[in-house]
Amino acid sequence: MGRDLTALFDPRSVAVVGASDDPAKYGHAVAAQALRAPDRRPVHLVNRRGGTVLGRTAATSLTAVGEPVDLVVVSVPGAGFEAAVDEALACGAKAIVAITAGFAEAGPAGLARQRSVAARVRAAGAVLVGPNCLGIADNTTELYLASDRFAPGGVALLSQSGNLALELQLRGEPHGLGFSRFVSLGNQADVTLVDLVEDCARHEATSAIAVYAEDFGDGRAFAAAAAAAGKPVVLLTAGRGSASARSAQSHTGALTTSADVVAAACRDAGVALVRTPREMTVVLAALAAGVRTRGRRTAVFTDGGGHGAVAADAAEDAGLAVPELGGPTQDGLRTVLWEQSSVGNPVDLAGMGEQRPLSYADTVGALLAADEVDAVLMTGYFGGYAASEGGLGGGPAGGSVLAEGEARAAKEIVAHLAAAPKPLVVQSMYPRSPSCRVLAEAGVPVFAATEDAARALAAMTGRGAADADGPGVPPLPPAAAPLADPGYHGVRALLDAAGVPFPAAREITDEAGLLAAAAEFDGPYVLKALHVLHKSDAGGVVLRLADRQALLAAYREMHARLGAPAYSVEAMADLTDGIELIVGVNQDPRFGPVALVGLGGVLTESLRDVAFALAPVPARRAEALLRGLRSAALLDGVRGRPAVDVAAAAAVIERITAVAAAHPEIAELEVNPLLVRPDGALALDARAVLR
Amino acid sequence: MGRDLTALFDPRSVAVVGASDDPAKYGHAVAAQALRAPDRRPVHLVNRRGGTVLGRTAATSLTAVGEPVDLVVVSVPGAGFEAAVDEALACGAKAIVAITAGFAEAGPAGLARQRSVAARVRAAGAVLVGPNCLGIADNTTELYLASDRFAPGGVALLSQSGNLALELQLRGEPHGLGFSRFVSLGNQADVTLVDLVEDCARHEATSAIAVYAEDFGDGRAFAAAAAAAGKPVVLLTAGRGSASARSAQSHTGALTTSADVVAAACRDAGVALVRTPREMTVVLAALAAGVRTRGRRTAVFTDGGGHGAVAADAAEDAGLAVPELGGPTQDGLRTVLWEQSSVGNPVDLAGMGEQRPLSYADTVGALLAADEVDAVLMTGYFGGYAASEGGLGGGPAGGSVLAEGEARAAKEIVAHLAAAPKPLVVQSMYPRSPSCRVLAEAGVPVFAATEDAARALAAMTGRGAADADGPGVPPLPPAAAPLADPGYHGVRALLDAAGVPFPAAREITDEAGLLAAAAEFDGPYVLKALHVLHKSDAGGVVLRLADRQALLAAYREMHARLGAPAYSVEAMADLTDGIELIVGVNQDPRFGPVALVGLGGVLTESLRDVAFALAPVPARRAEALLRGLRSAALLDGVRGRPAVDVAAAAAVIERITAVAAAHPEIAELEVNPLLVRPDGALALDARAVLR
Repeated sequence: MGRDLTALFDPRSVAVVGASDDPAKYGHAVAAQALRAPDRRPVHLVNRRGGTVLGRTAATSLTAVGEPVDLVVVSVPGAGFEAAVDEALACGAKAIVAITAGFAEAGPAGLARQRSVAARVRAAGAVLVGPNCLGIADNTTELYLASDRFAPGGVALLSQSGNLALELQLRGEPHGLGFSRFVSLGNQADVTLVDLVEDCARHEATSAIAVYAEDFGDGRAFAAAAAAAGKPVVLLTAGRGSASARSAQSHTGALTTSADVVAAACRDAGVALVRTPREMTVVLAALAAGVRTRGRRTAVFTDGGGHGAVAADAAEDAGLAVPELGGPTQDGLRTVLWEQSSVGNPVDLAGMGEQRPLSYADTVGALLAADEVDAVLMTGYFGGYAASEGGLGGGPAGGSVLAEGEARAAKEIVAHLAAAPKPLVVQSMYPRSPSCRVLAEAGVPVFAATEDAARALAAMTGRGAADADGPGVPPLPPAAAPLADPGYHGVRALLDAAGVPFPAAREITDEAGLLAAAAEFDGPYVLKALHVLHKSDAGGVVLRLADRQALLAAYREMHARLGAPAYSVEAMADLTDGIELIVGVNQDPRFGPVALVGLGGVLTESLRDVAFALAPVPARRAEALLRGLRSAALLDGVRGRPAVDVAAAAAVIERITAVAAAHPEIAELEVNPLLVRPDGALALDARAVLR
Repeated sequence: MGRDLTALFDPRSVAVVGASDDPAKYGHAVAAQALRAPDRRPVHLVNRRGGTVLGRTAATSLTAVGEPVDLVVVSVPGAGFEAAVDEALACGAKAIVAITAGFAEAGPAGLARQRSVAARVRAAGAVLVGPNCLGIADNTTELYLASDRFAPGGVALLSQSGNLALELQLRGEPHGLGFSRFVSLGNQADVTLVDLVEDCARHEATSAIAVYAEDFGDGRAFAAAAAAAGKPVVLLTAGRGSASARSAQSHTGALTTSADVVAAACRDAGVALVRTPREMTVVLAALAAGVRTRGRRTAVFTDGGGHGAVAADAAEDAGLAVPELGGPTQDGLRTVLWEQSSVGNPVDLAGMGEQRPLSYADTVGALLAADEVDAVLMTGYFGGYAASEGGLGGGPAGGSVLAEGEARAAKEIVAHLAAAPKPLVVQSMYPRSPSCRVLAEAGVPVFAATEDAARALAAMTGRGAADADGPGVPPLPPAAAPLADPGYHGVRALLDAAGVPFPAAREITDEAGLLAAAAEFDGPYVLKALHVLHKSDAGGVVLRLADRQALLAAYREMHARLGAPAYSVEAMADLTDGIELIVGVNQDPRFGPVALVGLGGVLTESLRDVAFALAPVPARRAEALLRGLRSAALLDGVRGRPAVDVAAAAAVIERITAVAAAHPEIAELEVNPLLVRPDGALALDARAVLR
């Protein structure tokens, strides 16, 4: 059910310890904000020197307040932090907002201090946000305990950066975006991002959760909380660049960068991942409109060919489709447009708007009514006829017949939207014009930049998800008995027991064993040296040994050269029309078991054509991952080759990743290659690295 | 030398034919603009009904003006267009700006009409812009012949879209961007984009050329003109999406989309290619700063960790490098920063700015002075201390000690820039604050959005170019004697004569010829059926025929099956450690011969790992293209394989593409595979399609 954060977001009383009259001190700003709602709840200011703060008598200590305090803000120098927290707990505080810095972010000693404090807070049945945070705010309970003011609205903003939160607040304003809550995450010593996402999911006044985080803590729990939130979660994070510099110990590791894992977790959980504050604002503005569609078929509608062409490309860049409209829809458009207009898609008024502004509304209406259209992107001059301000926001002087026509068109567009609840997103050179404001007030996202309009529309086409089943974080299976034999045949046995098919194989240590093994199945054979690092590169694998004689010769040569203690004799799989895949699972410190699937063999490293997902990976999602590879066309057969059995490969991927997820002691599990042929899938090699 | 456009941009007199008092007519807007500089040159208004227009007496015809007119704007109904042009020529007009529409854009009949008019204009020694254009303007000669006003400045804007030009004008304003000239390209019946780029290159007051074009006309000439312009050319175009839907007839054709060709031509020519009006404005604002660097090593400098992390990722997304700073630079930063500050890169004041605003300037100074830093990206709150406006542009109330410190810091930053002319680009939450204005007025590009700052900095790191020699459009060689025999052996002979190495091969038509050929060189052999479409897919190629017996057997089987009239017997190349490339050249209708290089074989189609360049491709550029493939790591050897001889492959690519460029009668020339081994490159197959 998650932790009870009532005392944090709706306390009965508040105290600011470290309240100050010195504007250079943070305790001054927080105290001033706390006093904004004097009638909502008692607010006590505490300053060890007493006197007055902000015109009020300050208590010299929390104890001196003389009554229980529900929530205590601690903004004191580091040396006095523990004493302040302990006093707060002694005074009955159920929530602490710890502004004081110098803990985990300053090194191991600070980490130990904050752990110790957090333990005492939890033991007292209280909660603590921070330390090293900038405060919290809840517009729905008139709780203002951060230096910045946040306009009221539906977005809960959980941020590890104060300045980015400020930028998001500034950027949201022109889009009418406001905030239900703001929490500066700080070091998450007690209350974590996960706790807050869970609480904001339950918070009725919150319609979307916006997160800026660098440290996800338990990333898998974050993903699960986001997937279960029942409202949009938008994540801004960093680390794509530096992550790629990580050194790695195995193929899977080399390819698994943390940025890839975060992106995969977001896709699986249906979290909208963004790269900049601007993109976050665009996505939030789009989601605030409330309208959604799962379809990507977009009609681009413009009053100028250039804007239409640029917007069509921007839409496709954003992952939308801009298909040519069908005959009946084109015929319908012809009845409201003139001869010069284009009706294929982009639809272009081609000057008709200047003669008859209502043609904007007629066209939007016709497009919204078409079954083949999931959404409409209107782009260009609309708003300019009646714009009264200058620049990208205003426009030429209005007041004409055209301006009146445009104003009427805006109202008719709103009426059309009510009749066909599909997304309309607008790019206008005059986004703050009266006509665009009519649209914006009706919930239509309006942007100045084409790429923003396209990104917004993409955000409205439903939450991510690689597979048709939609987003979801797969639960971890219960831990199985630890892997007894981490050697090659031990790993094979583990996977085999889970239903992963392998060719016949026997482990042998001498020539007698070799010949006995060869007698058990027919050639051609494969001989592998065991307990040799990177055995393939070291010449420890020989394929296509036609018969026992060839096998024996190969064994003697390999044994003389490598002196390996053991070998594996295997039936050679039929590689005809097969494609080699790689399937790996790494234990990520934040997101738990994470699977990688991709093209195997030499190409794995050189092409990096791989996809990631949280493990275990359900078969349908595995199939979607494979179909999403750049080289997916190979799976369907090229140049007359038959298609391979992707469903069989996906089923095997589900089993491999389920095994890895049930064995947290396995740091890395890899099947490479996983051969997939027209008639099924077969694991040809496997290895595991224990933690 | 290009065409003389003096009469177009600096006419001695002007007439507007079709001038009107009706505000709904374009002739009204143009006439009103034309009269803005009444003392610069005579302006005559012509309206067939006479009377007054804009308070002036209108002539009933151009002839009735009674004196020669240098430039005539024709804005009359379509039916009267030819007569108006003829009258203008008769009156001595040397330049015509044709607003009238309904020509090439309306179909073949209109195309024929505009061709006929253009021929008459050229015969008269005059020039014509349009038809179907919105006019021109030249701020340097006070010539205003378009409905929109353009603030004066250094950008020459050549646009096929009036509304996009208007948007660019609106977007440029906050960045102080102004325009030297504006030309609405229209149908380019006479004066083309190429003519205008060449003229603007010579135009001293023009510092950058901005183009929106959908139709490049002679695209290769455009690329060449841009490469030779000696000033930045920025191109906004569309067609990425729809282009990918093109059907194709061959591998090369299937992969060569026009968007790829445009992008390659821009890279080769050093043209900055942008996708949206917003991106164009960002790039123009960056280039207007004048400072350039060829290096990509960027120091990201922030006053908040979140902004630093987001900006570092944005910088790397934009193609910049954000390397960790070396010890001496870090030590230098330590002397001006406090302990909490980060000095690795991103460099983070971590609160010091609030205590000592001059630390902004100290840090920028230290970073600009470091040899290892090519450019600085400053991001975050700077500007906020002294900001006086609200929103993303203003900021909190100023006037404090911090505000004064920030203002001083801005001035000191400007002084540091004068001492070390490297790019500084700023992202600020308060871009219109006084402090940011001080920077902007000193030529520092300032943006509200992180991604814009990163894109701008990338634009300042020098013009594109795949190779170390920098951008340049390779000249076409003189046309060679047309290919006599377009069959397989004819194409081989053509390439062989140009120095492209092939294995030994003989064309044969019967068994006797087969045996004679086999006697000339050793096996293993390859047998290919000739004159068979897609011979490889059709089973018309057999490899690894060990001896003459095997060759003869293969011949009998293949001949019975395919009945081809001729065959090729070839020495089988040693494929060991080889990589198969594809090299193709297509004749693009706009850009002439365009080369494609990439991974060959089955992977060509499924991975589409290919690169394009204007042909002929110099060897150094060919090598850069190969090194830029996604799978370039294959070339250096993976898993213990030796590296292949990329230089040899590049030299062969130069020869193949030079042959294609000298043979305009060859629509497609393809060598696939081009085998590249550790010891050289060898063409294994070739084909040509004549136009």
